[in-house]
Amino acid sequence: MRISELARRSGVPVATIKFYLREGILPAGEARGATQADYDDGHLNRLRLIRSLAELAGLPIAQIKTVLGLIDHPDADLFTTLGKAISALPPYVEAIGDEHPRARAAIEHLGWTYDETFPATWQLERALAAVEEAGIPLTDERLDAYGAALHPMAEYDVAGAPGGAIDADAPATDRGATGRSATARSAAVRYAVLGTALYEPVVVALRRLAHQDVAARRLGA
Amino acid sequence: MRISELARRSGVPVATIKFYLREGILPAGEARGATQADYDDGHLNRLRLIRSLAELAGLPIAQIKTVLGLIDHPDADLFTTLGKAISALPPYVEAIGDEHPRARAAIEHLGWTYDETFPATWQLERALAAVEEAGIPLTDERLDAYGAALHPMAEYDVAGAPGGAIDADAPATDRGATGRSATARSAAVRYAVLGTALYEPVVVALRRLAHQDVAARRLGA
Repeated sequence: MRISELARRSGVPVATIKFYLREGILPAGEARGATQADYDDGHLNRLRLIRSLAELAGLPIAQIKTVLGLIDHPDADLFTTLGKAISALPPYVEAIGDEHPRARAAIEHLGWTYDETFPATWQLERALAAVEEAGIPLTDERLDAYGAALHPMAEYDVAGAPGGAIDADAPATDRGATGRSATARSAAVRYAVLGTALYEPVVVALRRLAHQDVAARRLGA
Repeated sequence: MRISELARRSGVPVATIKFYLREGILPAGEARGATQADYDDGHLNRLRLIRSLAELAGLPIAQIKTVLGLIDHPDADLFTTLGKAISALPPYVEAIGDEHPRARAAIEHLGWTYDETFPATWQLERALAAVEEAGIPLTDERLDAYGAALHPMAEYDVAGAPGGAIDADAPATDRGATGRSATARSAAVRYAVLGTALYEPVVVALRRLAHQDVAARRLGA
């Protein structure tokens, strides 16, 4: 298809498509003469992914490049690749020094994997500093309640990764560095990135609606 | 205390305190001569609340006024007051017309209270439109998994409202419009506003860390 058709079918304006071509995140079409090029469904799918990352998830171009690079060439170590991909998502928070005492205490209390290089650890540290400053610090009891709710949700999310890429039941050799195809790893990275970025607003809205539902029941509204 | 002492103890610069005084969201101190005023712990607490709303939760001045007005003069109908207060929090999304078909279907599927005037309903509609557009629409199965996790969390949050203000076990007459003191209603609004605005980043960060923990276990990292 021509670029005009690609624009129509993707919903992305021609000027924006040309920008993505110049940035090298959308591969060039097949040349048809000096000024025209032909695009296929591969281009359309890539363009839809870029659009989701740019417009729906709000990633800057540099982070889109990082994510696409990890999808196109996932490292054999899927866990590390996933970590890098999720780290490219907003919000972009800085580490507060080397220490994240509040986040460390919370994560260790829950018995989860603590990783100080993971931006979500810094996010949690900042969020916990904020509730402390506002006079409503996180109690162990609340942390337990939240952890008990969120861990099964995360189990559900991870189990849904395409092609069983993150499969707890696979034999240990298949779960290892070399036992998973690059295609399966690419699909898992795509799923994790879009799922994390675009489902957080769903979760936050649902949580507010759950509060409203509970309050309505309790207050007899 | 003098304004300099108030600034030091609250961490809010004098110029910002003067701005809040001009905006009428911080009550004037007691006059001590032509150019000086005296402030007390009431001012300090109010200033800390304004700071939490402005700097930590990111509310614009107009929305801070709305929230403070609801805390100072909560309507006898606590459910409506809470709804107005939560509606003053970011993100500020517009209703998409009168219909919210995706949000309505999801909320009714869960059997929760559907209220089309509640901004979280519009937030959910937009979030569901985005995941649909990205090719990862919300399935009923995922909705059930999320609802089952989030509703108990919301139960925990609401049960923790100060003074049993949102108390399911109170006699029906006490739960009614006139059975709850204005002080208890004020405290419940403050708790709901700060808890909603400042605990969402905690929940989002914990969810990412739960994903990481599950992936680490499954991938043997």
